[in-house]
Amino acid sequence: MTEYLRKVQYYETDKMGIVHHSNYIRWFEEARIAFLDECGMPFEKLEEQGLVSPVLSVDCKYKTPVSFGQTVKISAEIKEFGAARFKFSYIVCDEKSGAICAIGETSHCFLDSTGRIVSLKKKNPELCSFFEKLITK
Amino acid sequence: MTEYLRKVQYYETDKMGIVHHSNYIRWFEEARIAFLDECGMPFEKLEEQGLVSPVLSVDCKYKTPVSFGQTVKISAEIKEFGAARFKFSYIVCDEKSGAICAIGETSHCFLDSTGRIVSLKKKNPELCSFFEKLITK
Amino acid sequence: MTEYLRKVQYYETDKMGIVHHSNYIRWFEEARIAFLDECGMPFEKLEEQGLVSPVLSVDCKYKTPVSFGQTVKISAEIKEFGAARFKFSYIVCDEKSGAICAIGETSHCFLDSTGRIVSLKKKNPELCSFFEKLITK
Amino acid sequence: MTEYLRKVQYYETDKMGIVHHSNYIRWFEEARIAFLDECGMPFEKLEEQGLVSPVLSVDCKYKTPVSFGQTVKISAEIKEFGAARFKFSYIVCDEKSGAICAIGETSHCFLDSTGRIVSLKKKNPELCSFFEKLITK
Repeated sequence: MTEYLRKVQYYETDKMGIVHHSNYIRWFEEARIAFLDECGMPFEKLEEQGLVSPVLSVDCKYKTPVSFGQTVKISAEIKEFGAARFKFSYIVCDEKSGAICAIGETSHCFLDSTGRIVSLKKKNPELCSFFEKLITK
Repeated sequence: MTEYLRKVQYYETDKMGIVHHSNYIRWFEEARIAFLDECGMPFEKLEEQGLVSPVLSVDCKYKTPVSFGQTVKISAEIKEFGAARFKFSYIVCDEKSGAICAIGETSHCFLDSTGRIVSLKKKNPELCSFFEKLITK
Repeated sequence: MTEYLRKVQYYETDKMGIVHHSNYIRWFEEARIAFLDECGMPFEKLEEQGLVSPVLSVDCKYKTPVSFGQTVKISAEIKEFGAARFKFSYIVCDEKSGAICAIGETSHCFLDSTGRIVSLKKKNPELCSFFEKLITK
Repeated sequence: MTEYLRKVQYYETDKMGIVHHSNYIRWFEEARIAFLDECGMPFEKLEEQGLVSPVLSVDCKYKTPVSFGQTVKISAEIKEFGAARFKFSYIVCDEKSGAICAIGETSHCFLDSTGRIVSLKKKNPELCSFFEKLITK
């Protein structure tokens, strides 16, 4: 699990005075990339192997609004890793109080450079087992 | 139901060459606001009555990537309207081919100016029945 | 000259209650692309010829804040078109009152597919004279 | 002078494969806010005194494109501080090589809570001299 700290930016707020809900989806991406960096498999390394991993779905439940001046901690982890799909889950907390601000999930697949879905188990079993070991149980 | 047309913007693409997934959440908002405009209850009118309606959850499933140069049609409708919560659903299609690019949902509540949850049924039954009539069956 | 209409989006506002200043730079791009579309030389057509035109500089002066609910009219035109550089200028007005909200400029060059600066006069004199005719005098 | 480090985010890239030019304007804001934090006068403190400081103009010259995977260092400083206006300047470098990616400027004023321009020299001479001491000579 990665705990990614993120200061709220002014340009992320909207006229309600709080962070616009679309930005949490971007925070999830930041935390996911930090997760891959930390476990030694950065995004760039995947791209070098001709793999991209588009987002198949996102889901976010907003619990407490986040304001400018706050720092959030985004905990990201791999929850499932199947033959053709994998899932990340996220918890966004206020860094100071620990109060949960939002929870979410994204699901992904791997595509090769021609845009075709890749079964990592077949194409790159080593990379596949690397990811399987990262699943939070 | 509102059918909202939207040209893809260059700044909405990412280095994969397609629209970044976070932007669909913003398109949902645009379509939702267009929906409220069309049915004569624009956002500004709700705000004048001291009501804001934050997003409680979003959900999006991505089917086909969207590229710069495309125009999408976002169909938005109210699916549920309960005492304290309501739901919108969305279908994003390519305008020309009609191919489905993404489907999604958002859920919302009403807050008054002090930030407290409002039961529209109690506080403003007229507005409540106005929305109930808009539900797509 | 192109007159591009644009409804302000909720997600473009910030906690000051007005459109965040960075979004005007995106509006300039939208108006520039609409300009190229209108004069029959859409961005995609330039890309087909292996040309991209990155932004070399932007400049924006903010006159009157813009709020959610407003529609702005962005007037875009080519102001200079030299051998290696060209300039667009923009005026952002409130659609209803005509009040000027902002004025700006962007400058650009052409790069080929290898990322090298292209002198359009040498490489594609026809396209060059096409653009020269569009300059607002 | 503040030296603000910033990892490039995936969602900040566009289909040219580089950071979209509008995002530099947001980085300037991040660096400006970090500057105010560091010198003990955070944005929130200004807002508590009923002051907001909208952006009057931005200017950015792009030198070298920035890509996903890079970290940039944004050096921000106050360049002028007059009765009714002040200016920040920015240099964006690649953290590793030190190569200059962009340079820019923003100018600002102070408004009170009713939206009127404030002469800080008259209204709050202490705060005014605080800022004057921060000017880089």
